[in-house]
Amino acid sequence: MEITVMKNIMGANEEKASELRALLKDKKVLMVNLIGSPGAGKTTILENTIAALKEKNYSAAVIEGDVATDRDAKRLQRFDIPITLINTDGACHLEALSIEASLAGLELDKIDIVFIENVGNLVCPAEFDIGEHAKIAVVSVTEGDDKPSKYPLLFREAEAVILNKTDLEKYTNFNRQSFMTDVKNLNGTAPLFEMASMDKPNIEPWLGWLENKLKSVRES
Amino acid sequence: MEITVMKNIMGANEEKASELRALLKDKKVLMVNLIGSPGAGKTTILENTIAALKEKNYSAAVIEGDVATDRDAKRLQRFDIPITLINTDGACHLEALSIEASLAGLELDKIDIVFIENVGNLVCPAEFDIGEHAKIAVVSVTEGDDKPSKYPLLFREAEAVILNKTDLEKYTNFNRQSFMTDVKNLNGTAPLFEMASMDKPNIEPWLGWLENKLKSVRES
Repeated sequence: MEITVMKNIMGANEEKASELRALLKDKKVLMVNLIGSPGAGKTTILENTIAALKEKNYSAAVIEGDVATDRDAKRLQRFDIPITLINTDGACHLEALSIEASLAGLELDKIDIVFIENVGNLVCPAEFDIGEHAKIAVVSVTEGDDKPSKYPLLFREAEAVILNKTDLEKYTNFNRQSFMTDVKNLNGTAPLFEMASMDKPNIEPWLGWLENKLKSVRES
Repeated sequence: MEITVMKNIMGANEEKASELRALLKDKKVLMVNLIGSPGAGKTTILENTIAALKEKNYSAAVIEGDVATDRDAKRLQRFDIPITLINTDGACHLEALSIEASLAGLELDKIDIVFIENVGNLVCPAEFDIGEHAKIAVVSVTEGDDKPSKYPLLFREAEAVILNKTDLEKYTNFNRQSFMTDVKNLNGTAPLFEMASMDKPNIEPWLGWLENKLKSVRES
């Protein structure tokens, strides 16, 4: 019985996700879904990305998934962009239904890219299609090189992988070759973007990828 | 309907958890449940703890919860202790029913402490009583100082908090005072154990706490 109910929920979620993707296609808006552990650096990546996109005159919005607080949302307030906070009240992932409500509150005609920061978690968020064009796996070197093999679904589902906090790599036992091999085995196509958390974030390649992705959504 | 089913599952889980605690009391075995993000250092803490307990002639067993692989379990094999691996097949936490099956495979009369390494996650594992005497929150400085306030349930439920990777603190913007204040506000009684991930793990205070806890289980 448990499994049956679960299937029904997943079915409804997937239907809703398809609806959202159709809406985004109509509005020519790109939506990407950042998934990573607590503390992988998702909010910092968003801060750097949004600042850079502003300089290039792209307009962004953020949907923040958080279990309990508005701390991440508050960190993004200084950019003066639309931010929607979804407090999941204990749940470990976002669902398409709450993304629908968030998108309904946005003026999509004025937005180029919607970033979703999912709840900090490598398991459940990877299982749910929430209408995004791309899931992005965010992992930091301080978490260890074994994360792809331990959480394979996320790395299989990801359209791109961000390896963060590379400035701390020299202080850890992170085995880069083992990490790269595992990612490649799980996902032969996702590009890997390396970033540093503190200074020199090195986000240009990632920005280029976003711009290409936006172009393909606009042309679709 | 969804909620009702959920409640039934939780009820069955809690009943089972109480049964397990009665069994452990009868057998004078301490069971602790390590909960933390992927990459917080739970397996390394177990490696250091088990090595130290062996020297003191305590006998330990480990129940490893993992989404997909046996990598953590393999890291512990060299200690020649009973290790049970629970592959949750995608689920983000362990439940009392699978702990019951794991305990059934152990010779509890010969064991002092059972360590559970829960699935790497700060959300779901905190919600489930799996018969343990104590939940231990494991968080590393590289994850950032905001984890207690963002994942309050775990820190409320924890009987002790381990702050790991303090050797990397000087390379991060971790705000120790903010972290300490948040932990104190959520949980006025849990002791905080600081550990380093690479060298000089500093586990003596934690070992002392475990020994005291074992004593209280034996005397209960």
